[in-house]
This record gives sequence, C-alpha cells and structure tokens, in this order.
Amino acid sequence: MSTNREIHLASRPQGWPTADNFRLVSTEVPTPGPGQIVVRNQYMSVDPYMRGRMNDVKSYVPPFQLDAPLDGGALGEVVASEAEGFTPGDTVLHGLGWREYALVDAKGARKVDPSLAPVSAYLSVLGMTGLTAYAGLLDVAAMKPGETVFVSGAAGAVGSMVGQIAKLRGAARVVGSAGSAAKVERLKALGFDAAFDYHDGPVYEQLKAAAPDGVDVYFDNVGGEHLEAAIGAMNPHGRAAICGMIAQYNSTEPPAAPRNLALVIGKRLTLRGFLVGDHGHLRDQFVQEMAGWLRDGKLSYDETVVDGIEKAPEAFLGLLRGENLGKMLVRV
Amino acid sequence: MSTNREIHLASRPQGWPTADNFRLVSTEVPTPGPGQIVVRNQYMSVDPYMRGRMNDVKSYVPPFQLDAPLDGGALGEVVASEAEGFTPGDTVLHGLGWREYALVDAKGARKVDPSLAPVSAYLSVLGMTGLTAYAGLLDVAAMKPGETVFVSGAAGAVGSMVGQIAKLRGAARVVGSAGSAAKVERLKALGFDAAFDYHDGPVYEQLKAAAPDGVDVYFDNVGGEHLEAAIGAMNPHGRAAICGMIAQYNSTEPPAAPRNLALVIGKRLTLRGFLVGDHGHLRDQFVQEMAGWLRDGKLSYDETVVDGIEKAPEAFLGLLRGENLGKMLVRV
Repeated sequence: MSTNREIHLASRPQGWPTADNFRLVSTEVPTPGPGQIVVRNQYMSVDPYMRGRMNDVKSYVPPFQLDAPLDGGALGEVVASEAEGFTPGDTVLHGLGWREYALVDAKGARKVDPSLAPVSAYLSVLGMTGLTAYAGLLDVAAMKPGETVFVSGAAGAVGSMVGQIAKLRGAARVVGSAGSAAKVERLKALGFDAAFDYHDGPVYEQLKAAAPDGVDVYFDNVGGEHLEAAIGAMNPHGRAAICGMIAQYNSTEPPAAPRNLALVIGKRLTLRGFLVGDHGHLRDQFVQEMAGWLRDGKLSYDETVVDGIEKAPEAFLGLLRGENLGKMLVRV
Repeated sequence: MSTNREIHLASRPQGWPTADNFRLVSTEVPTPGPGQIVVRNQYMSVDPYMRGRMNDVKSYVPPFQLDAPLDGGALGEVVASEAEGFTPGDTVLHGLGWREYALVDAKGARKVDPSLAPVSAYLSVLGMTGLTAYAGLLDVAAMKPGETVFVSGAAGAVGSMVGQIAKLRGAARVVGSAGSAAKVERLKALGFDAAFDYHDGPVYEQLKAAAPDGVDVYFDNVGGEHLEAAIGAMNPHGRAAICGMIAQYNSTEPPAAPRNLALVIGKRLTLRGFLVGDHGHLRDQFVQEMAGWLRDGKLSYDETVVDGIEKAPEAFLGLLRGENLGKMLVRV
C-alpha cells in the first residue's frame, strides 16, 4: 500500500462548518527519518475543541492551517520505525489524526498495552477524555462526597464520565442535561439521578426541578443558557469547572453571557476554566482508579464510531450537531 | 438629651435611589435591658452593598424593612450598659448605624482601643473595608510577588487599599481605574504604577496600554465593561476576586455580562466571588500587618466625611455617584 489519504482544511468555516470546508487528499505513505515512526492509524478522536482551531485566531493551541492536514488525538500501529524503543506492531497514541498514515516524532508518541482494554478506550475513557472529566470534577471543582453535581452535555464523552465518576466518588445527587429523549434515557441507565432534555423548557426551571436542594458543582460543557441556569441554581460556595461552551462555537454573534453573574458574590461561587493538559500529574491515579471501575463493571462508556477517513468531516459535523452518544471516533 | 434621630427606608428605590426613599424619624433614646448596651454613634459606614439590601430580594443579607431604620457598620461610645464587660466610655464597633443612639446586644459589639488609631480607622483601613481588600487580594485571588494587579473602583475605600497592599506585598505592577482625573491623580500619589479614567475611552484599550504584559490578578468592584476588559487582558492562570459590581446596582435592565467569558477555558482563569465575612480567620494577621504599615507611613487612606445623621442619605447617594475619595463615612 503506497497511498495515504488525509483530510485538509479547505476553507475556514463562518458559523456552522459544512462539508465544503474539508478536502480529502491522497499523498504518499511517508518514510521515517531518524527518531521518527510511521503509524497506520486505527482510530482518531473527534472533539469539540477542534472547531476553535478552524478559526484563524490565537488561542491556547495554534489554528489549523489551510490546505494542510488537520490533526488531533489518534491511535494506531507502528509500521516503520527509525526510533529507539518503537518497533513495528507496537500500538501508540499520538497527536496526528485525520490521516491514514502518520509520520510521528517518537517523542510525541506513547505506547499503550492493547491487551488491557479495547484500544479505542485509550482515546476515550482511559485517555484525555476520561482525564478531562476526572480532573475537572475532582481537581478543578473539588467535588466532595454528599454534594449535588450538574453536568451539561451529559451524554457526550466527557459528560457521561463526569456523572458516573461523581456517583462513584460519593455525590449525593447527579443531574445531567442532554439534547434528546434517547440521551436522557441513556443517562438514567448510566446511573444519573435525574436528567432532562434542554429542548423541553427553560434550563433553569428544569434544573431547579431536578435539583430542588440546589447544585454544589457544575461541570460546564455548553455555556450560554446552561451556565446562567447553573449560576442561578448553585448553592453557596458552589464551584463550576468550565470545560467547554459548545453552544457558542459556531456563533457569529457575540455570545449570550450569564446576566446573573453578580450572584457569584453573595453565593461566593468559583468559576474556573481549565485544560486537561494542566492536570497530567493526576494521570497515574486516574488510570488506576478508572481501570479498577471498568474491571468491576462499575463504569460504562459509549462510543459512536464512524468508518473511513473520508467520513471524518461528517463525524465532526455530527458531533457539533450532537448526533453522538459518548465518544465520537473515526475508525480509519 | 432624650431625642434619637434615625433614618428609615420610606420606599424601595426603582433604579437609582433618591432622597425620597429615605425618611428622618425622631424617637426616644433607648434604655438597655439585660445584656444590652446603648451606644451614642460617632461614625457610620456607608457602603455600596447597602444598595442591594434596599431591594426586596433574598440575598446573603436580609433586605432592609420599610418604615424601619436601616443598619450597617458603626462605631460609638457606650453611654449605658446592662452587659458585663462594657462600661460607659468604652468605644465599640457594632452593626446598627443610620441612627444617633443604638440599642445593641452586647454580643454584637466589639470594643476597640481609641488610643491606637483615629477611631474612624476601625470602620475603614483597620475594619471590614481593609479586610475586604486584604482577603480578596491575598486569599481569594492569591496574589504572588512579581504579578500584575488591576483594580477597578480604585479610588474607593476598598480599591485604594487593594492597590497599596499589592505594592507592599511585592506586585510588579499595579493598575487602577477610577471615574475622574482627580481620582487618577490620587492613585498615582498612592503609588499605583498606572491609572486611568474609564470615561476616557474603552476600558479594554486603556487597560492594555496600562498593562502591556497582561494582568494576573483582577480585583473587581465594578463588573460590566470592566470585568469583560479584565478577562480580555488577563494572562493564563489569572484570578479575579469579585467583590462588587457597582456598575449594575441601579440597573433596571438585565446587566451586560462579559461576552468573552469563554476565554476562561483557554486561559484557565478563575473568577471567584467572595464576602469578607468568610475570611475572619485572617483578622489577626491583617490587623498586625496593616497597623505596621500605617505606623511606618507606608499606607495612606482617604476618608470622605459627611456631618450629621440627617445627611446620611445624601452620603449614600454620593457614594453611588462616585463622589467619595476613599471611605465614605457619616460623622453622627
């Protein structure tokens, strides 16, 4: 096989992206130089933050370049190696998704053990996604046993972990919001004490009904009306871990901001944004605890898998529309 | 003297309060019962948070009642006592301002030493006002030496302390905003590295010019455009201590909220509201450190004193209009 297919950014989306913003390009399978490996990707991660990188603005990660392959978390098998410690057949995690074959600097790759879990788990429950949930809930928001937790985007890859980890760590009540009746059902099956579809009425009213004693910890994946509702429903000394604001990623207007923000004073609330990259010190503890829960059947995770690199743009658009349950992956 | 004059809330303000919302009422000087003292007030504190208590809404302090005296921090001399440990002539701090004579439960009063500092200082630099600045800057926002600090409402009682404490604790750069050219001059005399009048142009532009390397700590007394500007100018891992949002206390519209709130994620910002009452554990350290700075001439404080209990409403309205420099007090 000498052909490699990859997805390029053809143009920058204005508002909602469309298939036209992407282009499938055929190139040659690369050859490794010193210190490099070539990886045949098996899975790539599809994540909401990628939308931000499609804009040409300075942020915590550089923007994607036009007419060049996109990138992002991926996992695959080493097929050629010029790097010490890597041999063909190894399974590795790395940062060059959106392509069939990746030429990776070995220091940007990490070997994983495919016998411990289905390999896709290293991109979801045991990977950055799971660590995002774990660190945001336990480190950033410092959830304590007996508290009430609210998570938005709760049927997504991060949100569904947040709710389950909260229960396993002793939360008294866990409430989730999602975008369809089927997702709400799934949340209840995952052990959420209450869940609602945000299309069914004002978020604040639904949240108050679902958490009559108030919210101590809010894990925000959505922003906008959800954040305002959470601020309104939070108890004194409540903490919000701000992970994402997907409600406004495709907005071309200045986004709605919580009009009740002054409540943070009287309630002594803390709103804290975070990136998982700052919480790597928790990785060992995270893997140990999560693997134990998985082994004991206490933790479930959903994956929505789309087949074929050519379908990656479609998978991304579906993610933005909320068509996934749990982690959105492309099987390359 | 058998007459006591006090200020009642005659009606609840809609938007900006007016003199008509208050009424001067004459009553009798009270007589203490068991465990009580009578205090002839010498000074009363006039504070922005009192505006919130004029609305009939549940908050962290109960609303003022109509046709009853307002209350708030005050200091005076005991003139009659039926409480152990208090004798006429003692100087005490308590919570029943807005009146000439206060009937106080002794457990709500605290004796202070009038020989250590001018007594009014116990309502400003050495009192709740100073502790608000100290706790917000050092505990809530956890300012570290070498950081850049921005404070809004910087010529007010709290703001002017924040800026000076920041410099004394090793801030690399302290920037203040205020509402007049005279206040800006005063901030520079107090040792602020830069100061600007927010009427002179967009806050964000002025702040970026005054803090070209960004802001690490923001102490918010104002909210609205100031908070949005601070979020825009903050460096990664910046912290905002949210103390007040005076810009919107008299608003009858839903207030403007920071449209750039999503920046808290990529910058990993923390926004934390606080009330000084949660930080009483710092009081001893605070008094010791502040008194030392005062003694060494390293800390200046301004007071704007209005004479006569009948002028208390006027003093409060002046405070909301920003007519004070430093602490607004009524000398009763």
